[in-house]
Order: sequence, then C-alpha cells, then structure tokens
Amino acid sequence: MSKDERLVKQITPKTEDFSRWYTEVIQKTELADYAPMKGMMVIRPYGYAIWENIQRLLDRRIKATGHVNAYFPLFIPESFLQKEAEHVQGFSPEVAWVTVGGKEELEERLAVRPTSEAIIGPMYSRWIKSWRDLPVLINQWANIVRWEKVTRPFLRTTEFLWQEGHTCHETAEEAEDETLRILAMYKEFVETELAIPVIAGQKTLREKFAGAQMTYAIEALMSDGKALQMGTSHNLGQHFSKAFDIKFEDRNQTLQYVWQTSWGMTTRLVGAVIMAHGDDSGLRLPPRVAPVQAVIVPISIGNWRESVLPAARTAEDALKSAGVRVRLDAREEFTPGWKFAEYEMRGVPVRIEVGPRDVKAGQAVLVRRDTGTKETVALDALPTRLLGLLGEIQATLFREALAFREANTHGARTYEEFTATVETRRGFVKSYWCGGDACEEKIKNETMATIRVIPLETEARPERAVCVCCGKEAKALAYFARAY
Amino acid sequence: MSKDERLVKQITPKTEDFSRWYTEVIQKTELADYAPMKGMMVIRPYGYAIWENIQRLLDRRIKATGHVNAYFPLFIPESFLQKEAEHVQGFSPEVAWVTVGGKEELEERLAVRPTSEAIIGPMYSRWIKSWRDLPVLINQWANIVRWEKVTRPFLRTTEFLWQEGHTCHETAEEAEDETLRILAMYKEFVETELAIPVIAGQKTLREKFAGAQMTYAIEALMSDGKALQMGTSHNLGQHFSKAFDIKFEDRNQTLQYVWQTSWGMTTRLVGAVIMAHGDDSGLRLPPRVAPVQAVIVPISIGNWRESVLPAARTAEDALKSAGVRVRLDAREEFTPGWKFAEYEMRGVPVRIEVGPRDVKAGQAVLVRRDTGTKETVALDALPTRLLGLLGEIQATLFREALAFREANTHGARTYEEFTATVETRRGFVKSYWCGGDACEEKIKNETMATIRVIPLETEARPERAVCVCCGKEAKALAYFARAY
Repeated sequence: MSKDERLVKQITPKTEDFSRWYTEVIQKTELADYAPMKGMMVIRPYGYAIWENIQRLLDRRIKATGHVNAYFPLFIPESFLQKEAEHVQGFSPEVAWVTVGGKEELEERLAVRPTSEAIIGPMYSRWIKSWRDLPVLINQWANIVRWEKVTRPFLRTTEFLWQEGHTCHETAEEAEDETLRILAMYKEFVETELAIPVIAGQKTLREKFAGAQMTYAIEALMSDGKALQMGTSHNLGQHFSKAFDIKFEDRNQTLQYVWQTSWGMTTRLVGAVIMAHGDDSGLRLPPRVAPVQAVIVPISIGNWRESVLPAARTAEDALKSAGVRVRLDAREEFTPGWKFAEYEMRGVPVRIEVGPRDVKAGQAVLVRRDTGTKETVALDALPTRLLGLLGEIQATLFREALAFREANTHGARTYEEFTATVETRRGFVKSYWCGGDACEEKIKNETMATIRVIPLETEARPERAVCVCCGKEAKALAYFARAY
Repeated sequence: MSKDERLVKQITPKTEDFSRWYTEVIQKTELADYAPMKGMMVIRPYGYAIWENIQRLLDRRIKATGHVNAYFPLFIPESFLQKEAEHVQGFSPEVAWVTVGGKEELEERLAVRPTSEAIIGPMYSRWIKSWRDLPVLINQWANIVRWEKVTRPFLRTTEFLWQEGHTCHETAEEAEDETLRILAMYKEFVETELAIPVIAGQKTLREKFAGAQMTYAIEALMSDGKALQMGTSHNLGQHFSKAFDIKFEDRNQTLQYVWQTSWGMTTRLVGAVIMAHGDDSGLRLPPRVAPVQAVIVPISIGNWRESVLPAARTAEDALKSAGVRVRLDAREEFTPGWKFAEYEMRGVPVRIEVGPRDVKAGQAVLVRRDTGTKETVALDALPTRLLGLLGEIQATLFREALAFREANTHGARTYEEFTATVETRRGFVKSYWCGGDACEEKIKNETMATIRVIPLETEARPERAVCVCCGKEAKALAYFARAY
C-alpha cells in the first residue's frame, strides 16, 4: 500500500460510520483535538482559521445592521443568575462554579457564564434611563461554559465560542422586529457563506431558551439525515427587564420596562460545515470560509526547481494579488501524490497542478475538490478563472446540500407513516401538529424526533389538517427530526 | 453655567488628581464601567472599538511574522499548573478555582487560566514529534483571570483580554531570536499605532515571568510620570518543555526538548492610550486606533436641514469612501456647542464644522483635537486634507509623548540624587546597577521605584560606572521608575 493510499484509507467511510468519520476527519485534518479534560477541545489553527472567517463575515453583518461590540464579565454572581426563575432553572444544572479566588473561599459563588443575560441586565439597568437611550444594540464575542454530559467536538463541548447579541427596545413590536431581522440575517449568512440551506422558524415552548418569551431558530439537515440547530434568536419580552429592573422613561414621561432580544451562533457552525459537505475523502470546504482556497502543487520531476517553481511562484503572487487565499506547497519531503491526498482530505476547494510540460505550454491544471473535475487554464488567465471557479464551487455545494435536504424531507399524515419515516428514512418529517405538549412529548419519547421548527414560510394548508399524533385539529405544520 | 461648560467641568483636571481624572474620563466617555463584582469591569462599545482596532492591527503583524491563531481551553487542571515549580508558585495566589461542575463537586480543581503555558504544554507534547514539526508558531486571543487585590480599569482587572503567543523551536538561538523579534514587533506596533514611545529591554530576574528563563518588556512613561509595562516577551528556555515532556527527534535522530517562547499584550493598552495622551478636557485618541477619526457637526441654524445637511452628508460619503472612520452627528436634541464639548472629551481627532456660510463658500472648518488648531478647507479637497491631517495628528501625539519622556528621564549617580529624583521629579531614572538582588530590593523598599528595564540599546559607558545603591562596579544601566 502506498503512503498516499494509506492516508486516505485511514478515514472510516462516512457511509459506514458517520460518527466515527466525523471525529476522524476532525483529528486527521487537524481542525481540533481533545483536551486532557473531559468534554473540552482545542481548536487547532486549521479549524480556528475557519472560525476566524466565520467571525469576520458575520461581524460585518452584525455591524452593518447597526450593532456594536462590547465585552461583559466572564463571571456571574449566583444571586444574579437566580433573578429570572425560568432562566436559572434552565441553566443551573449546566453551570461551572468558581468558589475560590486566590487563597480565599468566596462569599458568593460565581457562575462561569453559560450565557450573559444575567450579567448584562444589571448594566443595562444602570445605562438606560430614557427612550433617547434606546435602542441598545450590543453584541459580544466570547467564550461560554456549559457542563455538558455528552460532548462531541464543535457540536457540544463544555466550553465553546460564540457571539451573543443583547438588545433593548421601546416597544414589543420593535423587539419582535429585531428578533426576526436577526433570524433573517443568520439564514442569509449560513446559506451564503457556509453554503448550507436552512429552515427558519419558531421553536415550541418546550424547546425555547430558558427565560425567553419566544425562540426562533434556523435548522439544517446534516448529511447523515440528522438535524442541527444552527442559530437562535430570542424575543425575551420583558422577562429580564422586570427581573433586572431595566426601565426607561418613554415619550410620554411614563416609566416602562424595556423589551429585549438575545441571539447567538457558535463554533458549532464549524461542525455543521464538516457534516453538511464532507465526503468519504474528508472535508469539502466552502470557498468563502476555507482557510486555503487554492493550493499550488508543483510537479517535482527533473529540474523542477528551475523549470517549474518560478512559474508556480508567479501564479501564487498573481492569485494573492487577486485576493485569493492561496498556498504554494513546495516542500521537498512530500511527493505530489501525497500532497494531492492531503489537500483533498483537508477540503481545499481547488488544487492547481503545475508540471514542466504545463509551464512550457503556459498553462496549469485546476482540479475541483467538490466534483473532481479537471480543467486546463492559461497561466495568465488563472486569477480570473479561479475567482469564477470558487464561486461555482460555493454554488454547487449549496445546490447539493439543498437537493439533499429536499430528497430527505418527507410528509407524514399518519402516526404510522411518521414513525416509519423517522426510523427508516431519517431527514425532516413535515407533519401537522395540534400544538399540544402531550403529543410533542409522546413523539419525542417514542421516536426520538423533536419539533425542530414551525417554519415561518407557510404552505397552502389542506382542507382538513389534523395532528399527526392525536388526530385533533392541527395548529401548525412542523418540521420534525432526530437532531444533534 | 452653560450645559457645555458643565460637561467639561465635570472632569477633575488631570493635574489636580491624576487617578481621579483617569477613572472619570473612562466613565464619562463610556469606555468602560465597573461591574457589580469587585475588580471586574465591563468594556463598553466605545472602549471595545479601540480594542478591536488594536486587535486588527496587531493580529495583522502577528500573522505577517508567520504565526497562526488557535484556541485552547479556559480551564487548567490543578495538577498541570503544578508541573513547573516556579510557575505555580508565581500564579497560584492569583488563581480563580472552579470546584463544582453542574451539580457535582469536581475530583480535581480547575484553574481559570491565569496564562496558558500549562494547558498548551500537554498539547504540544502530543503534536510535536520531529524537527519537521518545528517551529510551532501559535497565538491565541483570549480572556484571562487573575485574582488581583488592587484593581483599576484597563490597567489591572480580575479579568482582562489579551493575545498570548506560544512558540516552540529547535534550538536555544532560535527561541531567543523569536523572543527578540516579537519584542521589536511590539515596540513598532505601540509606537506606530498607539503613538507611545517605549523602551525595550530585559527585566531583572526578580521581575521576570514565573517560569521564564528571561523576560523582555517594553515600558512607557504615562503623563503622570509613572511607568507602565506595555508588553512582555519571554524566552522560556526548556523549563516548560521539560515539565510537560515536549520532545522532538532532531536532525541527528536524537530526542531533544524543544525551546519555547511566550509573549503577550493586553487590554491594558487601552489604559495606556488614555494616560499617555489625555488632557484636562478628556481623551486625545491617536487616529490609527480611534473608533471615530472625524466627526461632522452641522451648525444647526436657520433652515440647516436644507442648507447644510445635504453638504454634510456628501462630505460624510466622500470621507467614508476615502476610508476615514467618520460620523455625522445630525441629532436635533443636542446643540452644536454640546457636541463640540462631547467629542472633545471623547478624543475624536478631528471635528468638522459645516455651517450655512461654509456651504455657500464651498468649505468646511477642521478643528484638531490635539492642538485645537483650526483651518478652512474646500469641501472637494476634504478627503485628501483629512487623511493628511490624521497622519499629522498621529505624528504630533508621538512627538509630544517622546518629548515628555525625554524631559522626564533623569540620570542619577548617587543614591541621594536617585531618591530625590524619584520623589520630586518622577519619570524614569537612569542609573547604573551592580546586578545584585539586595540593591534592587533596597531601592524598591525605600523609594517604591523598581527596575523597569535594562535597555537593549547600549550607551557609551563612563570610565568608572558604579552601582547607584552600593557603589560597587556596575553591571548594567537600568531604567528605574515607580510603576503601575
């Protein structure tokens, strides 16, 4: 077995064991590694570079919609966390507690933030006095700790990175508008930059954020047919403003509690990129967030340092000037074949091969990671063609993921149909639901499928829509799935 | 007293009470606020925007020198922290400890990272096998917790933000080169972007990082005559590689411990910008890191919405296109006078006044925050002139800070001269030192001045250079000062 083959063979095929494939891809492509403490991970440079691209592209959108960044403390005194009853109930089982500072036992335990509503609330209460101070549109990039029992790299880890928006508004309507504006921004971001189609909708009351009035989410289908929540946007109503006394004098000189929202997306998105696009050979990264968009591999035969390398360097410079994230791999200790396999596994969107004959002909060979298609391009046309090709790859990945979701979204009208679909076909099951807690729970217990979202986009409703579980009149169409 | 006057008068003059001036400026310009827990702060949007500019400009330099970013866990098991003896001794008095996770008491306490050597070490031990894996050049942007007894916003807080570089090399020479390369990068960054001149040099063994072989630092003089450490770069030798078993097979197939460095700069830099450049009216922000580089204040008289506002908007667009961070403040609830005072306090480098007569004459008035100088400029020449002016302001702030440091750096040859200078004139005192721990300690105890650095740039040495404290033969010239 050659070295090249060995390298690729080391990854368990996705179709054989998805879960093992996932963790092997992460480790072998050096996206992340397990830390020596249970449930914790290290985001290695290759994985962190994807996160940096996500941050940059998302931060730009957050700012373009009028938000500014700030930074609030990592620790939250226990008494603050307890002020909103539902909030503390939801989060306290997951909190890591600091009880000793320096050499001294603390008088009050400090929670390592599981989310920041309870430390931001007291500050907003101090800063906001009048309607003139509103809206407050603040976002924070931060690390978060939740003491999870079952963890998986990127998807669910004891510590993760995220952005959390926390806004205050004069009216309930404005808060609802903000919640939905962010949800739309998240959807556009994930579809444009990560090439993953999502369904935007409401969560049920069972699945909402602890302390929220209403939670909205975007949900995607991973390539094993399980759903993944990609981001959430909460309308907090006045739950926290009443708990933390965040009041303002309105335009009629009356004291009112502010209306709030909060919303977040996390490093989980990196896991989504792996699971939505990867194949048996490893990663397939969307060009918009790929740390390396194109790798130039010089074919090292004969006097290649003289005959090939100068042309490869010229191509590298030209691509860099065109704004492409390009790497020239001229290392001598690895063969071209080894490099082909390595960058394929790492999901680099385009490989550029340049050999002695190519240089003579003034051309290079481009190989797409997503389709494997090869094409020859004149060296002086390389930047233009590559920019076009990266766009095509981004579009192809999205189209493929959308086609996969469509092929794996099934309607189910009877409970038998429903359970059979969940069991045998996976994916999303679209069914009508009575809105009752009992049916939601029964379905969850019996099928492990949960209501992922009640979609915002409505469909033509049949004349008689009944709950897939109890047969009573339906309240809404819902997307069900087994989920991460 | 007018509203404008009141606003400025609210700040205690710098010359009257520097420490009060500092905290008042921070609160009134909304750079930061005190959190409800002792020693913790909230970085508000205006302060965080300065930090974002620092991050962007520093991250660019970190990457240009070949480093990549990654993310390591927030928590460090106690047993890891204990592996390097000097390290644990130095940091354990300052550690916040997590002892409960979820509902369970932890078997082993987890330190909230006071620095990350002890969690990065075990990972490097796993990742590094051969000389081919070296150098490892990783940087991390993260939050850090140190349980400080005396705190002050930005300068010393229980939690702060920083970047920490952690590198591994094949040889001692390479590690020393890296340590000094970073020190030079820090100096260039602080002088270019923050307009603060610094002295680069070695720390004494007393003042070095706990676990380092040698610490280098850059030190600046604040405008009250006290020194501030701006950044440190440590040559860790093999202290941590031996403690964490980070070995590699060298080019001769022999197992060796790697040679390491670590280095960091923190949100303290924001405090330095305030203290180095601020005046009695508030902040004076260097244009390169100012969140708002120029504010356009329309003079709201007569039918200004028709006569002035369109021209102001055109100017705003032109400046934005030229890459200037500009804000047009067209709010009606505040007078131009109030705005002048507000942006002066907030340290916006240039104010652009546009009134009805200016528009008719096709011009605007530019007012420099640093000098108060006014000039008239044609509206169509505005972008070009403003870019030039921002450069001049940046240079002026640096020149002023350098002149201040030169005027406040004094030589002292006798101990009497030394103590009198420290007591009455403040600033840096340059004196020869025998290199002995006893003299260093005596000086610290008797004068509260410490050795800030032994400068890298050497001066012509007098024929007979003796220690300012004991009179024995001197080993080095040192910069002493009282410091933050």
